[in-house]
Amino acid sequence: MRSIHDLETPVVLVDLDVLERNITRMAERARACGVRLRPHAKTHKVIEVGRRQIAAGATGLALAKPSEAEVFAEAGFDDLFIAYPVVGADKARRLLALAGRLRRLAVGVDSVEGASTLASAFREARRRLDVMLKIDTGLHRVGVLPERALETARRLADLPGLRLRGIFTHAGHGYGEPTPDGVAQVARHEGRTMAAVAEELRGAGIAIEEVSVGSTPTAREAMAQAGVTECRPGNYVYHDGSQVALGTCAPADCAMTVLATVVSVPASDRAVVDAGSKTLSTDPLRPNANGYGQIVGRRSRLQRMSEEHGVVVVEGGDSFRVGERVRILPNHACVVSNLHDRIVGIRGESVETELKVAARGRVE
Amino acid sequence: MRSIHDLETPVVLVDLDVLERNITRMAERARACGVRLRPHAKTHKVIEVGRRQIAAGATGLALAKPSEAEVFAEAGFDDLFIAYPVVGADKARRLLALAGRLRRLAVGVDSVEGASTLASAFREARRRLDVMLKIDTGLHRVGVLPERALETARRLADLPGLRLRGIFTHAGHGYGEPTPDGVAQVARHEGRTMAAVAEELRGAGIAIEEVSVGSTPTAREAMAQAGVTECRPGNYVYHDGSQVALGTCAPADCAMTVLATVVSVPASDRAVVDAGSKTLSTDPLRPNANGYGQIVGRRSRLQRMSEEHGVVVVEGGDSFRVGERVRILPNHACVVSNLHDRIVGIRGESVETELKVAARGRVE
Repeated sequence: MRSIHDLETPVVLVDLDVLERNITRMAERARACGVRLRPHAKTHKVIEVGRRQIAAGATGLALAKPSEAEVFAEAGFDDLFIAYPVVGADKARRLLALAGRLRRLAVGVDSVEGASTLASAFREARRRLDVMLKIDTGLHRVGVLPERALETARRLADLPGLRLRGIFTHAGHGYGEPTPDGVAQVARHEGRTMAAVAEELRGAGIAIEEVSVGSTPTAREAMAQAGVTECRPGNYVYHDGSQVALGTCAPADCAMTVLATVVSVPASDRAVVDAGSKTLSTDPLRPNANGYGQIVGRRSRLQRMSEEHGVVVVEGGDSFRVGERVRILPNHACVVSNLHDRIVGIRGESVETELKVAARGRVE
Repeated sequence: MRSIHDLETPVVLVDLDVLERNITRMAERARACGVRLRPHAKTHKVIEVGRRQIAAGATGLALAKPSEAEVFAEAGFDDLFIAYPVVGADKARRLLALAGRLRRLAVGVDSVEGASTLASAFREARRRLDVMLKIDTGLHRVGVLPERALETARRLADLPGLRLRGIFTHAGHGYGEPTPDGVAQVARHEGRTMAAVAEELRGAGIAIEEVSVGSTPTAREAMAQAGVTECRPGNYVYHDGSQVALGTCAPADCAMTVLATVVSVPASDRAVVDAGSKTLSTDPLRPNANGYGQIVGRRSRLQRMSEEHGVVVVEGGDSFRVGERVRILPNHACVVSNLHDRIVGIRGESVETELKVAARGRVE
């Protein structure tokens, strides 16, 4: 059997034991809370990983864009939610084709202007598209504020061609919380706000079947709140340096590392590896920026990145030599997936499989 | 003929008129200075763009990694320089195969430890590999300091299996200079230091045929210094927001933009487009960080990025509506290329061609 020592660098490794444990644990948590689990597949973009999530009990998958959903539809997944405000007549045509091949499809909306092109296309085709209204529970990216939800939901419910299936949110601002307590507070607010909005809408006669929350750091607490029906964490399959820093998981729960080679040690306090921003991205560590990746088993981190060079500031007690291989815990696993055509599945140091990142680059 | 209005978003556009002008101008500058031009193809990773550079008079191409060089070798390019300290026996095997199919190949080295595996492999195969010694002229990434160059060059010249063709540097610290004068000073220092190191090595009896400098901001001044024989700028084919901010070029010299759709306008001071870090990267604007991309023709910039969302802080006087399309000038063109499988070549608003980013993701 091949070992990781036989691989050329840089290469993305995924520890399958850790991956499987992460998938099982999140599925068990969702079951214990009585909510449906709909993992966000943007983290891995890998068909086989999605299949493992479904086998462990997930209802379906969440995706970011129509082109990403098309890859999973092609592979036989039949219940997909595009958790994104999809806009435009060209995208509406793609959604129509997707809806025709899936058992269940839903799409995020956050404005009547955005939803109306989708509505027209589906009405003309004498079809109906399930939509989920995005609620802004504090991230302040897309979504309507809770106090404006009823007004928008009423207008959406009136659009022929659409069916308002429910509401969804993403409490990504949890990534900015400096303590696990702060993250838990964001999570409880996320779940409770969504339950309250759902109740308000139902009180006004609007059927709300799904109340969907998300994000790996807030998943545990948010899905435990009464009234929540679905949870959409993504990152938990791999975890990463930011999840460790946020207190979401232990270092041993991180499935993804990048294997790299030290190519230069030009000074006693500097070592350079063959993994730069085109391998690891320049995404910062959350919640507090500290370099671009931790060298596993050492105190040192990548502190500067160029496209093909990662510059390690050598911490006291660490040393590196040219030709040595190191494993790097990335700050943000989701963006690493999107930089690579394949990942290598390992157990311990044995190479078990190579997996295609089938939806890599599908940003349309 | 298709227009950019027919394209789905997000998509990378390259204005072919601007591209051709950029290629011609840099070739003319190199000719005027009497230096060879060896563009770094990592910026575009596109076979057809490389061919245009050669047609305009470039000697060959610079590449970052062996796998990237393999893509261009496969397409018939026959004079390649891997401007990177390639290390390890597995990479040495790839270089042997590459050397067998090219008219000319050279590889960067910056240590005897790193070079010795390459030397062994080529000596065993009774071949000789051209290497270029990397000099650190101030970036402090890889490379030997000028005062250590002679010592390392002597030891490299003694290694059977290698031939020391010359010396090379990359003054990437020019990207940190707040004024064009500062950039020009870095460039002059880059060229003069390299010429002095070459003279010192020659004085010690070491043949130095090539004195190679690089980087788009420093190219003009660095290649004008006496003793420089080759220049390796990469970014100039497209330019980007950072080049404009550095004063390297005017906005009209930027060939690459990202076409995106406004998907949400949740507040009067916030608009969200369908291009996030998986389309544009999170690379900062150089030399002074200011968001993640400029909306062309507006004052507003992307000020926050998630993977699929770019958040525009709407500046006074600007306004955006859901469904509207905008063009974004990215901070860093080289990393945008690496995120996409294809780019669309346009003239004005007409779509002329679609080009494959053939070496995308080739980081090994």
